[in-house]
Amino acid sequence: MTNETRVCRLHDKHDIRIEIAPLDAPGEEEVLVAIGAGGICGSDLHYYHDGGFGPIRVREPIILGHEVAGTVEAVGPGVNTLKAGDRVAVNPSRPCGTCTYCREGAFNHCLQMRFYGSALRFPHEQGAFRERIVAKAFQCERVGAHTSLAEAACAEPLAVCLHAANRAGNLGGKRVLVTGAGPIGALCTAVARQRGAAEIVVSDLEDRVLSVAADMGATTRINVRTRPDALDVYAENKGYFDVVFECSGAPVALRSAINTARPLATIVQVGIAADVPVPLSLLVGKEINLIGTHRFHAEFAEAARLIDSGAIDVKPIITGSYPLDRAVEAFEAAGDRSRSVKVQLSFG
Amino acid sequence: MTNETRVCRLHDKHDIRIEIAPLDAPGEEEVLVAIGAGGICGSDLHYYHDGGFGPIRVREPIILGHEVAGTVEAVGPGVNTLKAGDRVAVNPSRPCGTCTYCREGAFNHCLQMRFYGSALRFPHEQGAFRERIVAKAFQCERVGAHTSLAEAACAEPLAVCLHAANRAGNLGGKRVLVTGAGPIGALCTAVARQRGAAEIVVSDLEDRVLSVAADMGATTRINVRTRPDALDVYAENKGYFDVVFECSGAPVALRSAINTARPLATIVQVGIAADVPVPLSLLVGKEINLIGTHRFHAEFAEAARLIDSGAIDVKPIITGSYPLDRAVEAFEAAGDRSRSVKVQLSFG
Amino acid sequence: MTNETRVCRLHDKHDIRIEIAPLDAPGEEEVLVAIGAGGICGSDLHYYHDGGFGPIRVREPIILGHEVAGTVEAVGPGVNTLKAGDRVAVNPSRPCGTCTYCREGAFNHCLQMRFYGSALRFPHEQGAFRERIVAKAFQCERVGAHTSLAEAACAEPLAVCLHAANRAGNLGGKRVLVTGAGPIGALCTAVARQRGAAEIVVSDLEDRVLSVAADMGATTRINVRTRPDALDVYAENKGYFDVVFECSGAPVALRSAINTARPLATIVQVGIAADVPVPLSLLVGKEINLIGTHRFHAEFAEAARLIDSGAIDVKPIITGSYPLDRAVEAFEAAGDRSRSVKVQLSFG
Amino acid sequence: MTNETRVCRLHDKHDIRIEIAPLDAPGEEEVLVAIGAGGICGSDLHYYHDGGFGPIRVREPIILGHEVAGTVEAVGPGVNTLKAGDRVAVNPSRPCGTCTYCREGAFNHCLQMRFYGSALRFPHEQGAFRERIVAKAFQCERVGAHTSLAEAACAEPLAVCLHAANRAGNLGGKRVLVTGAGPIGALCTAVARQRGAAEIVVSDLEDRVLSVAADMGATTRINVRTRPDALDVYAENKGYFDVVFECSGAPVALRSAINTARPLATIVQVGIAADVPVPLSLLVGKEINLIGTHRFHAEFAEAARLIDSGAIDVKPIITGSYPLDRAVEAFEAAGDRSRSVKVQLSFG
Repeated sequence: MTNETRVCRLHDKHDIRIEIAPLDAPGEEEVLVAIGAGGICGSDLHYYHDGGFGPIRVREPIILGHEVAGTVEAVGPGVNTLKAGDRVAVNPSRPCGTCTYCREGAFNHCLQMRFYGSALRFPHEQGAFRERIVAKAFQCERVGAHTSLAEAACAEPLAVCLHAANRAGNLGGKRVLVTGAGPIGALCTAVARQRGAAEIVVSDLEDRVLSVAADMGATTRINVRTRPDALDVYAENKGYFDVVFECSGAPVALRSAINTARPLATIVQVGIAADVPVPLSLLVGKEINLIGTHRFHAEFAEAARLIDSGAIDVKPIITGSYPLDRAVEAFEAAGDRSRSVKVQLSFG
Repeated sequence: MTNETRVCRLHDKHDIRIEIAPLDAPGEEEVLVAIGAGGICGSDLHYYHDGGFGPIRVREPIILGHEVAGTVEAVGPGVNTLKAGDRVAVNPSRPCGTCTYCREGAFNHCLQMRFYGSALRFPHEQGAFRERIVAKAFQCERVGAHTSLAEAACAEPLAVCLHAANRAGNLGGKRVLVTGAGPIGALCTAVARQRGAAEIVVSDLEDRVLSVAADMGATTRINVRTRPDALDVYAENKGYFDVVFECSGAPVALRSAINTARPLATIVQVGIAADVPVPLSLLVGKEINLIGTHRFHAEFAEAARLIDSGAIDVKPIITGSYPLDRAVEAFEAAGDRSRSVKVQLSFG
Repeated sequence: MTNETRVCRLHDKHDIRIEIAPLDAPGEEEVLVAIGAGGICGSDLHYYHDGGFGPIRVREPIILGHEVAGTVEAVGPGVNTLKAGDRVAVNPSRPCGTCTYCREGAFNHCLQMRFYGSALRFPHEQGAFRERIVAKAFQCERVGAHTSLAEAACAEPLAVCLHAANRAGNLGGKRVLVTGAGPIGALCTAVARQRGAAEIVVSDLEDRVLSVAADMGATTRINVRTRPDALDVYAENKGYFDVVFECSGAPVALRSAINTARPLATIVQVGIAADVPVPLSLLVGKEINLIGTHRFHAEFAEAARLIDSGAIDVKPIITGSYPLDRAVEAFEAAGDRSRSVKVQLSFG
Repeated sequence: MTNETRVCRLHDKHDIRIEIAPLDAPGEEEVLVAIGAGGICGSDLHYYHDGGFGPIRVREPIILGHEVAGTVEAVGPGVNTLKAGDRVAVNPSRPCGTCTYCREGAFNHCLQMRFYGSALRFPHEQGAFRERIVAKAFQCERVGAHTSLAEAACAEPLAVCLHAANRAGNLGGKRVLVTGAGPIGALCTAVARQRGAAEIVVSDLEDRVLSVAADMGATTRINVRTRPDALDVYAENKGYFDVVFECSGAPVALRSAINTARPLATIVQVGIAADVPVPLSLLVGKEINLIGTHRFHAEFAEAARLIDSGAIDVKPIITGSYPLDRAVEAFEAAGDRSRSVKVQLSFG
């Protein structure tokens, strides 16, 4: 066991460097994990391209990454649920457990949340794009040998989608629209299918990602760039969809969602954006429920289990993988929606 | 019983005329009601000042009014629940009972709704600002002699607020914010109080209407014109309010609502507006439920009962009353929020 | 088209007769269906063995059966959604559409419900075990050529289970217990699997039916006759299951359900029984939600669709099929849980 | 400050002794409270009369009592929210904060709950019928000088009823039945009224307690001993009540509740009992939600506030008060429903 590790650190916009960082031995209830795969998320991309998003700005060098899986190399004192050689998805979320919201069980609203690779607080919470990381044992969800670490690294975005689905409630027999077929849209599609939705229409501007959505369970895919009016039919008689997962944050998509949702429908807003114009009259007149969803808590373990059991096959969304040394190339690919859904780094 | 009646008809923007219209005898299951009082609603004002709102335009002369109460003068064949002399609040809503939404019990989303004084469909649905009107018996909710017709005419806006409260769910022990203290905000305040809210903060730009809100049960009133930062304290630690009734449709009010709502809170959007910029990141991050509310159904009878029993005293909101001949004056007063909450016409 | 048909009519306990009954031509909005298969339900068995159940008694000869599918032979005037040759599952439920509960959308609580083969009201509602039946077009859900009529006849019990699942709400990621693995328990298992339950434990007294439950998606099966304490482990730390489908009506099963449900869990009571002792202290102390479920409404169409699309494979539950002439033999087999799950009659 | 205090300790069935017990000084975050009033609860009575209830048995001497209020006499280190002289209602509930259920925010299901005067665990948790008690500061809710300690001591049973009401959800405009008009039934009545129920029917066997229920807000009271059929009218057309608070634990009352609840109604089971026969067919057929409610958590503070603000006047339920020396007399009175609702001990 060495006492240092290579990491992927962002110093400034478009300034990613592969550097050496110190590595502690695992302490009490901790484990040392050799990371195998790490997915690039939208927030990583925003940090890389824009130096932040909305009021959140990168103000010091930050190790990126929060979608990782790896192999346990060593366990610290008191760890008896894991052993060297175990393959694990690593939960990036460490709520404090004691604030008002944690005490209500709303851990994802923790006032002192520590979440890998987040620039929300200062000093920033360093991320998990490292060859080796020391994590708490409770963060680790084991997967079997038949599950690749690339797949296991999808547990985090899948957990986001499971939480979004829990916000929507019962999907069984429901008509679902997913707007935006990036990684989150694709996985929301998979969850809707896995939870028994009757029909899943997915819209996007790119055929490539829509093709992945079809692999994930979409019953209908609509390219709203080439067929801008194709959703209109669903707006007739006050609307059609019971549930919408709005995964784009694009004003036109939210407008489509409100237009095509039936009275009393639920639109789960997953994609984020600053101020977006919302047609309130229509939201009011149809009594739409527009509800936010933020990260996840208990859903991380469920996500790992669903991937591990094969109940949800995440392989179609992984459209690219690059070794750590080619991180810049990976980030450029990840930002190109015409060819990428989920791009990962591979380690070690 | 004569065969004509005086009505208040809008011919064009700012062109209200008191005219004579024919009056039928009450048919099967119908009653003839001599209207006593009729409240001027925001939609009436929009028709009067702007010739419509959003996509809804006045395209032919329309009798205004949908908040009315009166005295039964005669009953048609088959009516045995009402008799001449009964004092009644008249429900302006007549859903078809057979469309998809009616069949689901969602009558307020009826595809063929007939609602007094609405320019939504063409020909327009004529309204109830008439000295005499023939209505279905089922539209009439009886009130006692101790309840004035002016009070009874508040059943309609109160029903709107009861429905908004039903959309919010249990208000018992909840911290409630009401943004906008016009008639609807004032009545939402009353409903929140009547349903056991722990705390009710009301904001508006006008002291006059805030004073009425205090009479209706507000525990704190905030003039956001004179104290623009007074709500900020409620935004700390991710927010304070469990439920918000956003009754203004003003972008700044909705922004305040989202800022001061605590994670997982419900904002009931009551006020309408065209495109309003919504800070989606905050709505998503706090998992806010922004839900629309539209009119009412079963709540009309409850509203009449609450007024009649004295459980909710609506008198403070009635800030002006004008005889039919002075309708123009009434509409001008109703549009002046510095001095008016609810302005009514009196008839007969 | 003949003007008579053979039917399976119960005259008294254990007195089933195959008789000739008159057959009308299909009227307005009606179709003539040649029944292909009809499942024997628990209520049919109660009528046959006991002459009724609880306060419901067979007081006149009644044609049994309400789980049927067949082929359209002729359509009446005004029917344009079906044509001769269409294969359909026939919904046995005809709510009045106008009573208090129908007006609220709660059609399954219709005060004037007409449901095939029910002795609840007098004169009894005659059933669908007939070679030919005239039904309303709206009762018929079409299935494709790849779906056997035997499978299509399972739409009715599957609709019961979909409704039970809708009563439970979101099953995604939930730990589910199913007590009683008859046809309803087996189909509840299938629905729980199809809607994404994390784990489905099924208990019964018979290995044969448990084996079918495993085919339907049970992750664990427990024979509580041979292993009476096998559920105890789930009772530790106040319980384990989030949702229970209690499909037996047996006191010992409901007791197990309450013992092994975790605090705030939902037990959907599907099985019926007269007075059953319930340990109220435990229900109260754990804040269990014990909720009834009764038939279905919109779920019938969904059931037909799930069978037709292959999303739920009902074939494993069909453990026997007998021609109409051998109806008595079919009823005897249907009552023997050691060898039967669902027994059907075949027609024509 | 002395180092001992008088306490009310149960040694065996019908063996209450007023004894001297040691008294520590308040430690970190603790306060010393001079108890002023303490209400006798049903569980105290069960311990006194029967030596326990159900599987819970008094196995060692136990200080009774968990409904108390008093005056702060001294505060320990670190207490800055309270000071000597403050009048407080004392929350008897101390969940561990770290078990599975506490971590979900379901504190009332804490696996390690410490609740004053409870024989559930062994050693028993000693109670609060003492002249002086050392409590955690967080247990104390302050009330004003205008609120008597007798009233403040009702915060605990009122919290039970607020929690029961939260289990039921929105009570606004609902038709409510309360079966059993002891202290809990009377306070459920008050909460239903305070939260805007449209109608509150209360049933009991005793006129005396029904008279108190009327004072608490019942709109109709029914003595089912003298008028055993008086509830039958509510059973017509499948039932009448939207919500029932079943506060008796009596089989006949639960049967009435199920008979008179309308389809899809919620019966909150508040009263406890061992095995009670439940007509499952009716519960199933009407899709009744029979849900348990257990103690409270956040509702304690709300209860204290409602009493202190006068929103709920608890004085009518306090039908007797006895000094500590006459505790036996108090327990005898408390057990006599023909004359008592809530009996309290007074201290000091």
